[in-house]
Amino acid sequence: MNTICDYTIQEYINLVQNFHGTLAPGMLIGGFMIDLAQKNLPDCEFYDSICETSACLPDAIQLLTPCSYGNGWMKVVDVGRFALTLFNKYNGNGIRVSISTEKLNNYNEIKNWFLKIKPKNEQDTDLLINEIIDAGINIFDMKEVDVDPTLVGKNKGKKIFICSECGEAFPLENDAIQICRACRGESILYT
Amino acid sequence: MNTICDYTIQEYINLVQNFHGTLAPGMLIGGFMIDLAQKNLPDCEFYDSICETSACLPDAIQLLTPCSYGNGWMKVVDVGRFALTLFNKYNGNGIRVSISTEKLNNYNEIKNWFLKIKPKNEQDTDLLINEIIDAGINIFDMKEVDVDPTLVGKNKGKKIFICSECGEAFPLENDAIQICRACRGESILYT
Repeated sequence: MNTICDYTIQEYINLVQNFHGTLAPGMLIGGFMIDLAQKNLPDCEFYDSICETSACLPDAIQLLTPCSYGNGWMKVVDVGRFALTLFNKYNGNGIRVSISTEKLNNYNEIKNWFLKIKPKNEQDTDLLINEIIDAGINIFDMKEVDVDPTLVGKNKGKKIFICSECGEAFPLENDAIQICRACRGESILYT
Repeated sequence: MNTICDYTIQEYINLVQNFHGTLAPGMLIGGFMIDLAQKNLPDCEFYDSICETSACLPDAIQLLTPCSYGNGWMKVVDVGRFALTLFNKYNGNGIRVSISTEKLNNYNEIKNWFLKIKPKNEQDTDLLINEIIDAGINIFDMKEVDVDPTLVGKNKGKKIFICSECGEAFPLENDAIQICRACRGESILYT
C-alpha cells in the first residue's frame, strides 16, 4: 500500500510526528486500519468512532477522520484491544477492524513488537516500520458490527449546577446530589 | 489578549475549525486557559496534562501542547469540571486553571452559555465569541497543585496475552484471568 486515506505514507508520517511526537509503530498500523475501515463503511453522511485502546490508535483516528476526543465523535472504551470501529452515527451500523494475531505469523517483527515477545532495546525499529508498510492491511480482521445503543448518538445536555464544595460548575445528574464528582471523591486528582 | 500560545486568535480559530470541526466556544476558552497555564508553569523540560472534562477542552490541549490522548501525555479524568492542569511529569507539581463562576458575573453571554441559562437557539454566537476574546484570561481561577501520584508517570508496559474468547491480544493484568475485559463483559460495545 502506498497511501493512507489519501496521504502518501511520508505525508502521514509527517502528520504523526507533528501530532503524536514520534512515529510509533501503532500510529502507522492505525493509519492502515482507518484506511481499511473507511473504504468498507457503507455510504453514510456522518460517522462516529469507537477506539478499544488508549494507546496510539486514538491519535490515528483524530488525524485521519473528523472524529476527535473533544468533539465527542470518538469514544475511547479502553478494553485493551488494538481495534477500532467506524459507524453510522444514526443507526450504529459499522465496520470494526482489529489486528489478527494469526496473520501476524507472517510478519515476525510486527509480531515480536505487538505481543511484546522481544524487549524494546532488541527491536530493530527500521525493520519494524518497513514490515508494517509492507504488510499494510494484510494483518487485520474486519467485520460488520452493530454498535450498542448506549454508544450511539449524543448525550443530551444536562443542566449545570454549582458544586457546593469547590464552587465550580458541573453537569447535574441528580437533583439530590449538589456536589461534583471530584468533590464526592469519585476520582482523586490532587494531593 | 491578541494571542493564544504564540498563535494569533485567527490562526488558532483556523486550527480549531480544522481539528474540532467548528469553533465551539469551549475551544476558544480552552485556548486562553492553556496559554495562562503555560505562562505560569514552573520551568520544566517535559509536562503532562490532566483534563477534567471530555467536552472540547481535550482538543484545545491536543492542539496547543505536545500532549495527546494517544501518546498518553494527556489524561482525561472526566469529573465534569471545565478545568485543566499542566504538570511536571516527574514530580507532579503543576498549574490548574478553571473557570470562575464568580468572575463570569462580569460576562453575561459567557455566563448564559456556560451555565446553560439561555437555550442554545436564543444565544448570540457572534456576541459570545467576541465576549470570550474580550474576557481572555479574566474569567479563570488558577492555583498550584500537586497531582496525585496515581496520575504521574507512565504505566509500565504489561505483558500481552491472547484472549481465549475473541483471540485478540490484550494487556495481562492478572495471570489467572485469560479473558480480555471486553469478553468479560466489563464494557458492552456491540449488540
